[in-house]
Amino acid sequence: MGIVLGSNQYGKAENRIVRIVRDTQRHEIRDLNVSTALRGDFSRAHTQGDQADVLPTDSQKNTAFALAKEVGISSPEEYAVALARHLVDAVPAASGAQVQVQEYAWDRIPVDGAGHDHSFVRRGTETRTTVVTVDGRGEGQRCWVLSGLTDLVVLKSTGSEFRGFLKDRYTTLAETDDRVMATALTARWRWSDTEGVDLDEAYAAVRSVLLSTFATTYSRALQETLFAMGSAVLEAHPQIAEIRFSAPNKHHFDYDLGRFGVENDGEVFHAADRPYGLIEATVTRDDADEPGQAWTAVPGFV
Amino acid sequence: MGIVLGSNQYGKAENRIVRIVRDTQRHEIRDLNVSTALRGDFSRAHTQGDQADVLPTDSQKNTAFALAKEVGISSPEEYAVALARHLVDAVPAASGAQVQVQEYAWDRIPVDGAGHDHSFVRRGTETRTTVVTVDGRGEGQRCWVLSGLTDLVVLKSTGSEFRGFLKDRYTTLAETDDRVMATALTARWRWSDTEGVDLDEAYAAVRSVLLSTFATTYSRALQETLFAMGSAVLEAHPQIAEIRFSAPNKHHFDYDLGRFGVENDGEVFHAADRPYGLIEATVTRDDADEPGQAWTAVPGFV
Amino acid sequence: MGIVLGSNQYGKAENRIVRIVRDTQRHEIRDLNVSTALRGDFSRAHTQGDQADVLPTDSQKNTAFALAKEVGISSPEEYAVALARHLVDAVPAASGAQVQVQEYAWDRIPVDGAGHDHSFVRRGTETRTTVVTVDGRGEGQRCWVLSGLTDLVVLKSTGSEFRGFLKDRYTTLAETDDRVMATALTARWRWSDTEGVDLDEAYAAVRSVLLSTFATTYSRALQETLFAMGSAVLEAHPQIAEIRFSAPNKHHFDYDLGRFGVENDGEVFHAADRPYGLIEATVTRDDADEPGQAWTAVPGFV
Amino acid sequence: MGIVLGSNQYGKAENRIVRIVRDTQRHEIRDLNVSTALRGDFSRAHTQGDQADVLPTDSQKNTAFALAKEVGISSPEEYAVALARHLVDAVPAASGAQVQVQEYAWDRIPVDGAGHDHSFVRRGTETRTTVVTVDGRGEGQRCWVLSGLTDLVVLKSTGSEFRGFLKDRYTTLAETDDRVMATALTARWRWSDTEGVDLDEAYAAVRSVLLSTFATTYSRALQETLFAMGSAVLEAHPQIAEIRFSAPNKHHFDYDLGRFGVENDGEVFHAADRPYGLIEATVTRDDADEPGQAWTAVPGFV
Repeated sequence: MGIVLGSNQYGKAENRIVRIVRDTQRHEIRDLNVSTALRGDFSRAHTQGDQADVLPTDSQKNTAFALAKEVGISSPEEYAVALARHLVDAVPAASGAQVQVQEYAWDRIPVDGAGHDHSFVRRGTETRTTVVTVDGRGEGQRCWVLSGLTDLVVLKSTGSEFRGFLKDRYTTLAETDDRVMATALTARWRWSDTEGVDLDEAYAAVRSVLLSTFATTYSRALQETLFAMGSAVLEAHPQIAEIRFSAPNKHHFDYDLGRFGVENDGEVFHAADRPYGLIEATVTRDDADEPGQAWTAVPGFV
Repeated sequence: MGIVLGSNQYGKAENRIVRIVRDTQRHEIRDLNVSTALRGDFSRAHTQGDQADVLPTDSQKNTAFALAKEVGISSPEEYAVALARHLVDAVPAASGAQVQVQEYAWDRIPVDGAGHDHSFVRRGTETRTTVVTVDGRGEGQRCWVLSGLTDLVVLKSTGSEFRGFLKDRYTTLAETDDRVMATALTARWRWSDTEGVDLDEAYAAVRSVLLSTFATTYSRALQETLFAMGSAVLEAHPQIAEIRFSAPNKHHFDYDLGRFGVENDGEVFHAADRPYGLIEATVTRDDADEPGQAWTAVPGFV
Repeated sequence: MGIVLGSNQYGKAENRIVRIVRDTQRHEIRDLNVSTALRGDFSRAHTQGDQADVLPTDSQKNTAFALAKEVGISSPEEYAVALARHLVDAVPAASGAQVQVQEYAWDRIPVDGAGHDHSFVRRGTETRTTVVTVDGRGEGQRCWVLSGLTDLVVLKSTGSEFRGFLKDRYTTLAETDDRVMATALTARWRWSDTEGVDLDEAYAAVRSVLLSTFATTYSRALQETLFAMGSAVLEAHPQIAEIRFSAPNKHHFDYDLGRFGVENDGEVFHAADRPYGLIEATVTRDDADEPGQAWTAVPGFV
Repeated sequence: MGIVLGSNQYGKAENRIVRIVRDTQRHEIRDLNVSTALRGDFSRAHTQGDQADVLPTDSQKNTAFALAKEVGISSPEEYAVALARHLVDAVPAASGAQVQVQEYAWDRIPVDGAGHDHSFVRRGTETRTTVVTVDGRGEGQRCWVLSGLTDLVVLKSTGSEFRGFLKDRYTTLAETDDRVMATALTARWRWSDTEGVDLDEAYAAVRSVLLSTFATTYSRALQETLFAMGSAVLEAHPQIAEIRFSAPNKHHFDYDLGRFGVENDGEVFHAADRPYGLIEATVTRDDADEPGQAWTAVPGFV
């Protein structure tokens, strides 16, 4: 038997790129965390210490910054596609590339009722994400685009039950017909194609559907709520093939005030850290095309 | 010589208390992280292992949760005052108490243009804080109230220079008349009294003044900007005696694209993690009363 | 077209289980963070809100704690296998389960040259990990075992070069024949079988081989070092089929002291946070059996 | 009334300085996180935007790196003293300076029973700290030195009780004569002088006394244990004036297995995250000199 190199990738992670568009006095800002990875036949570097096939991660960093100017960032997705394709073109040994982007949102600071031209405050809620994977080169090159968000923290103070579940020897949980339900949602949706899609608008629209579905759906389990949220997204966006969720069930336990003679009718809760339930689910069209490499090396999903 | 007990305190830190007001269908939520500490003569517990003076931290936790219902949380400050006073009353050996609160903000989820009754999304920007310190008991009891915020992340993409500074052998920094200035602001303001103040309204007003002053003040140094922000707060709020800032200078370095023949006229920046400048300053009335114990054991200030 | 449930799993994450063995006066401690996940046909819960198939995550938590006593923790791997199998047996709708464990190491506190019976100090270096995946039930049940570690932080202050790499328009990195090389290693190795293996001993042995190979291998790239480390593990442990690495290249940049007339011959470095190179590689036997579901949903690998 | 500048300081925080001593083939490594702060009359910068008194934080950074070579790091304390004094000398407007250092420990990688010359593994347990404060200049300059450690995580699985405490309406805690006691200790000790002290040896000795006292002292409360630890340090080190502790009581709760018919006699615990008890205490000589500015702006102490 022999020992060989298996799957591998390398790149520069977490380039913190801030792009200011200052063509007019009213500046625009895009604040990104960009990670690149190249895949392909890099066995000489691993087994012989020969770097001739290897474009340094430092060069990948330089490229990520340079393309923020040369290509611009009309959306994180379009920037990531350009960067992934550029990297494959630059490196003959590469068979493909993956670019992951997190985007942090900023609002204009309100002054006298209007947003300031060049002063901003971090919105600080969820982070927008994209993962672009490119495979092959030239005519046959494939490209997959995931859009998404992480840490969208939501809570409903009623309208949630949990009953009728399977019980075994170790089951002590009481059934409840009214509880707090909270999660810090990670969602990623895969585009079958992005032809004609304004990706910034689409992001806002998907986020809005996720929120309003969470708000208005009576919940018999977090699983049911996620499925409803995913279905609503797929119904509204025909070019989205599937959506995947990872949703920690952030437990809010009734604090037992009865021990002190104080009533607590769903009013005072202990927000626990760990452990937490973790619900992960995919909602998909039954005729969705194969995902190919879209989900390869993407953290946090089944 | 002998070895003796010096200053000391003990309590329960980081009680994660969520309070839902559900008197009507339109719920309200207050989401707090509460830490209590008792000070006084607890030498028997330290030197003899005798706990007769010690109210367990577990009881302090129970009290923090119970008062969230019994007293309620009209503002974090008022809740903290009640809790600190209660703890001193409950423990004869205590000479005083300190309660620190962080509050996380939630917005109603918008549905059809209106905020939902019982579904919320974390605002996720800055955290509101309060520190209440009580000393003594009965008639002579003193009480100090700090309000504040942490992690208010702001950035201006122009309108900031840094020139004319002191230079020594190790100075290599170039002067600049146009740079990005960004910080994650911590501010705490001390009330000379809170008589007649609506503390929730005051918080929003101070935050608004801080933001608009940051936005509209041309900056010749972060120090100058902080002083302007503090002065504006003191001018608008006569019952605030002083305000203290801790402001990391979150460096955004021009990325040198000229090496690749790409122009970068203040458009592409590297947002660095460490090291960072750290500017701390107090803005105070020249006739402010003595702060007493208001700032004792409060992290992050001179 | 229809909208359907795709792949999914649910469970209880991060159960912080501490197990003390106190059969004699000389206590033993195992300190674990345990996450469980069940996979299978849970579509009724998602699409109809019917929980009859769902064993609550609270019951999974109770089970994880109970089995720490009933089965014990002879090694994290054996405990995880027992827990995963138990959960599949307990839930008819489950087709499989995955249990992830992190173990934190403790040393006995040295007193008069010997380790204390019941007082411990956290070793605090790397975390030991295991991921056990079970699929199917009864005779045909499959079981995959990964062992591993995260955050093994190593550095060599010489004996590392980086030269002869591919250059493009954006390449500005200088070649070097002497640099600091440092990483915070994550490694996971897959057992073809664990028959007759003492898994605690094997863990110590693999860790030792990883460290000594890192120390004694002259490095022409982090890729070459990882391949050498993986090969050494496979050569020493015939029952390990493959090993996967995720290795951030923690950059240590020479600080330019020449600007002040101070010599710096590889003596003073700035340890940078971000960005960092990220090298991921698999070293495998060329006749290794198929990994099946061993790597499904395991974070951080290609 | 007027608005004026109060207490203030500014500097460069978290310079990640790695110093390799390579005078022989057997390298030495010191891995530091260094923060500087200058205090004095910097009102022109705050109120007029005039930087003539201000040595840029960038220059402070350069100085911190340069002195790692020019002065060297025989101990973090001596390096910090030199750096603090240098900064005061360099800046006429400064009245004083504070330098905070965290040091991360590395061990040599064992190869064939001996430590390797130039390959290291992070010890990763506690962090060593120092805070040096300098006030004034020339003959009258004062200098205070604190040494310390953070995150020394210790646990005893028996030999700890908690009984006889004060009870009130909200007390529900049961008394116990056998519990797990665990903490992540922060300790800082103030030197009355360091004349003739080998500070690296002293650090190891104090750490050893803290650990062995923790191990061998039967505990009737964490307070008693801390006082015993502090007394032992003061008895062994006559030049230490006082020691301050901040000790979270990391609760380990018996997990109730009786609900499933499983016995749990102090064997299976849930290690809780929050809330936690927080015990802070000073152990001091009764004739200790005044601490002056030694503790000013040092986080986490009464």
